[in-house]
Amino acid sequence: MVMSSLTEGILLTDEYQLTMAQVYFRLGLHERPALFEFFYRKNPDYGQHQAGYCVFAGLDPLLDWMEGARFGEGELEVLRSQKTRTGKPLFAADFLEWLGKNGSFDGLTLKAIPEGRVVHPQVPLVAVEGPLAQAQLLETALLNKLNFETLIATKASRIRDVADHATILDMGLRRAASGAGNAATRAALIGGADVSSNVGISYELGLQAAGTHAHSLVQAFIALGMSELEAFRAFADIYSDNTTLLVDTVDVLESGVPNAIAVFEELRRKGHQPIGIRIDSGDLAYLSIRAAQLLDAAGFKDVSIVLSSELDELVIWQVQTQIQQEARRYGIDADALIRRLIFGVGTRLVTSWGQPALGGVYKVVAMQDGGEWKPAIKVSETVEKVLNPGHKTAWRLYDERGSATADLITLSDENPASEPVLTLRHPFDGAKSRRVQTDKYRLETEGANLLETSETDGARKKGTFTLEPLQSEVWNGHRRVNGETLEVWRKRRQADVETLDPGVRRLINPHTYHVSLSQKLWNLKNQMIDRLTGGH
Amino acid sequence: MVMSSLTEGILLTDEYQLTMAQVYFRLGLHERPALFEFFYRKNPDYGQHQAGYCVFAGLDPLLDWMEGARFGEGELEVLRSQKTRTGKPLFAADFLEWLGKNGSFDGLTLKAIPEGRVVHPQVPLVAVEGPLAQAQLLETALLNKLNFETLIATKASRIRDVADHATILDMGLRRAASGAGNAATRAALIGGADVSSNVGISYELGLQAAGTHAHSLVQAFIALGMSELEAFRAFADIYSDNTTLLVDTVDVLESGVPNAIAVFEELRRKGHQPIGIRIDSGDLAYLSIRAAQLLDAAGFKDVSIVLSSELDELVIWQVQTQIQQEARRYGIDADALIRRLIFGVGTRLVTSWGQPALGGVYKVVAMQDGGEWKPAIKVSETVEKVLNPGHKTAWRLYDERGSATADLITLSDENPASEPVLTLRHPFDGAKSRRVQTDKYRLETEGANLLETSETDGARKKGTFTLEPLQSEVWNGHRRVNGETLEVWRKRRQADVETLDPGVRRLINPHTYHVSLSQKLWNLKNQMIDRLTGGH
Repeated sequence: MVMSSLTEGILLTDEYQLTMAQVYFRLGLHERPALFEFFYRKNPDYGQHQAGYCVFAGLDPLLDWMEGARFGEGELEVLRSQKTRTGKPLFAADFLEWLGKNGSFDGLTLKAIPEGRVVHPQVPLVAVEGPLAQAQLLETALLNKLNFETLIATKASRIRDVADHATILDMGLRRAASGAGNAATRAALIGGADVSSNVGISYELGLQAAGTHAHSLVQAFIALGMSELEAFRAFADIYSDNTTLLVDTVDVLESGVPNAIAVFEELRRKGHQPIGIRIDSGDLAYLSIRAAQLLDAAGFKDVSIVLSSELDELVIWQVQTQIQQEARRYGIDADALIRRLIFGVGTRLVTSWGQPALGGVYKVVAMQDGGEWKPAIKVSETVEKVLNPGHKTAWRLYDERGSATADLITLSDENPASEPVLTLRHPFDGAKSRRVQTDKYRLETEGANLLETSETDGARKKGTFTLEPLQSEVWNGHRRVNGETLEVWRKRRQADVETLDPGVRRLINPHTYHVSLSQKLWNLKNQMIDRLTGGH
Repeated sequence: MVMSSLTEGILLTDEYQLTMAQVYFRLGLHERPALFEFFYRKNPDYGQHQAGYCVFAGLDPLLDWMEGARFGEGELEVLRSQKTRTGKPLFAADFLEWLGKNGSFDGLTLKAIPEGRVVHPQVPLVAVEGPLAQAQLLETALLNKLNFETLIATKASRIRDVADHATILDMGLRRAASGAGNAATRAALIGGADVSSNVGISYELGLQAAGTHAHSLVQAFIALGMSELEAFRAFADIYSDNTTLLVDTVDVLESGVPNAIAVFEELRRKGHQPIGIRIDSGDLAYLSIRAAQLLDAAGFKDVSIVLSSELDELVIWQVQTQIQQEARRYGIDADALIRRLIFGVGTRLVTSWGQPALGGVYKVVAMQDGGEWKPAIKVSETVEKVLNPGHKTAWRLYDERGSATADLITLSDENPASEPVLTLRHPFDGAKSRRVQTDKYRLETEGANLLETSETDGARKKGTFTLEPLQSEVWNGHRRVNGETLEVWRKRRQADVETLDPGVRRLINPHTYHVSLSQKLWNLKNQMIDRLTGGH
């Protein structure tokens, strides 16, 4: 990635990362191996509805950014200009010299759960290992990129769930946060959108952008003394094989749909097949039914109806439900109508309406001392906020039907498959635990989850219980371990969502998916809490 | 601005802008002068609380982007690759040739309300005039940049209002949408934040970034067998004149504050003045009071207390209120304690928690035909969504105390000061209107609002009523008319907020500020609605 300016490179960070790095440098701790983990604490809660899982996204853009981020002369000059309150340089010359030589992410190793996978609270999604100062300097950008794309991919996955097989068009660019439009589009496409209106990033991801037309086309024609019909005809003349007409600039049923049908008939006479109409305001369910009546009567039963206007998973669900209740009264087959709908989703997708931040954190969980990893912890009055300490591994357990039944966090030196009975402890409720007989479990090879999902999926369906390691190496000291494509991320999400209990996928009040600690990790955590707080 | 890639330049747009542009090209309408306006319909509603005004931001970044955005060979190649459903090229060679030669924003003129000003619903904030195809192509990027920064500057202004004179530190970068961190920081600094943790963009805006340290510093020390006290001491040794210590990694009152005081005493012995402590969790009001007790007893009455953790205007208000109620019980002067607070605001500022999108729109309102402007309209079943048609001017009326009393939208050929009595019509409620005697009003010279606000402010306080034109030219065919600085934007906001009725600034259920149409514009709008809908 080419950095366009000082503001998008390694200085896209919080000041305190730099001041802390200088402390570590001064104490000779800056190159001490440290382990940081990225995880989030709670699935999004949108108010009236809640997510039961997340879809992990944003990893490839993070690695791309890491490749180009380093302290050049420009960045060092910014730091040289910073002063203390008494006017002295904030950063010393020897520290800046070290930063110039070592201020990049070359020394780090990242293990991560692959992009597109379904993920759960508390589970480490990324483990960053390497020199303390470098690992600390990665925090802000990592959080910025992973939190947001995971949030949006999750929202898209929920919309995908409710829309079933209907096409979902992301058209949120104009309402995305300034600068975040491409990340939002990318995450939407990973999470469940089929196609996007956003031209540049769609191309980069190997898709062709899609769209219809705006009200302004019809307005401009009318202002110039022409009509909606003439605007539609002009559009259809040029896009004879790609005609979707926006029918609500004047009046959907009195003007828009009749004019669209007139133009569709002209197209049909010339041997072209119109694609659809779009309705962007009003009672979308009612207008769909009435528009379908008119289209059907004119012999356009295959023409799609694109709906847009503040859609999200609840609004789509409501539209479908209202059609189910109301269509028959108008002689329309509700199921057939629902199958011809296309959903254009914007604002509420790209802002994750109701929960606009994921709140994932990046915490140091271990430090090396004398060649040995020492666990680090942070206690808190809020029990969910106490860290899970130490060098850890994340696993997923599947039952014999291939359903994901729990995620398990163990210490890295544990092999959960080697113990006859595995105790799964609730992360912070000491009264809750569950036992699993591991002799039934087949251990999946590390990295299997990087394969085409169809293969791992197949392996899991052999009637065996499976214990799958979730993380694999994605960055090794210099650069990305491998490049992946949108198709892989999408397939992974699809396969993972299918392993979830339907209760976990429920839109409202979903089942809580089990995330557990091994007995050994549970013991370590509680010993450390006691030691730090004196048992109180 | 240097474009880093195809995805950040002129292809940061919706597909339909390009397909519509080709329609205009094919019909020979692409260079027909058109007028588009950007405005928003409703102030943000955050759920339990609502904004009574917005602060306009994002203009300078938009103009900066416009300077670099154009169709080069790479962009044209993307369009050449696009196909219709039947595999033919979507865009014709002659259109692409025109785009290559004319596909930039050089032909446009933009008039805008200056950045940093208080703005209101329905009022055109930006008017874009020029060739239809170019004006259409600007839509997506303009909405993306202006909607978001206005939303965040507005949130920051509310936080500024409630925080009174306390320092506000923006620390939201990690929780901002991926790619939007710099825009969020910029808007926060315009809207009310004093300083930001975001290093690169702060430097670019002429500020030094600020920060404290993270929990990880203390955690790392403890993991290595050292203590919180040693971590604090290491930090203070290096930043003797800039020491703010995070006191909640172990236990605020039992460990953090006593350790901070020990280090502050060491600093004091060496002749340094510590800056503060930071509390990032727990009951912030209670912990502030108790920390103040300990600090005061040790003689550190001037040390600041930085509060962070999901702060927004309501949480800050709650903290202040609780301190007012509870401080006396602990022998602490509530007002003095509130004066020493600093607010670190993150997630809820940079995501505009509760209302994560502004929903501003960009609509064609007039087209030139035979050298004459023809008004354009869009009707809607929702009366607030009916466009105000025609070539228009926006004004602000101040009463003799210098208070803003209404914004007025007129047609461009009207001079509201020349009529003895001005009728202010409600934008869509025909029953509501108000009359103003204009002979008392002094017309402010156009562009006065671009001056240092102290000057215009002074002019308004002469006991006269003032009628101020709000828009001025910011882009003239090629590039920005003038560059401005953060200081100007901030002063403008400050001056404008002071002209608002306190009821409009209220956090919850604010007064509705009057935005009115002139009688002539009202008549035009209603005639056009009748003509288009046949009066129904």
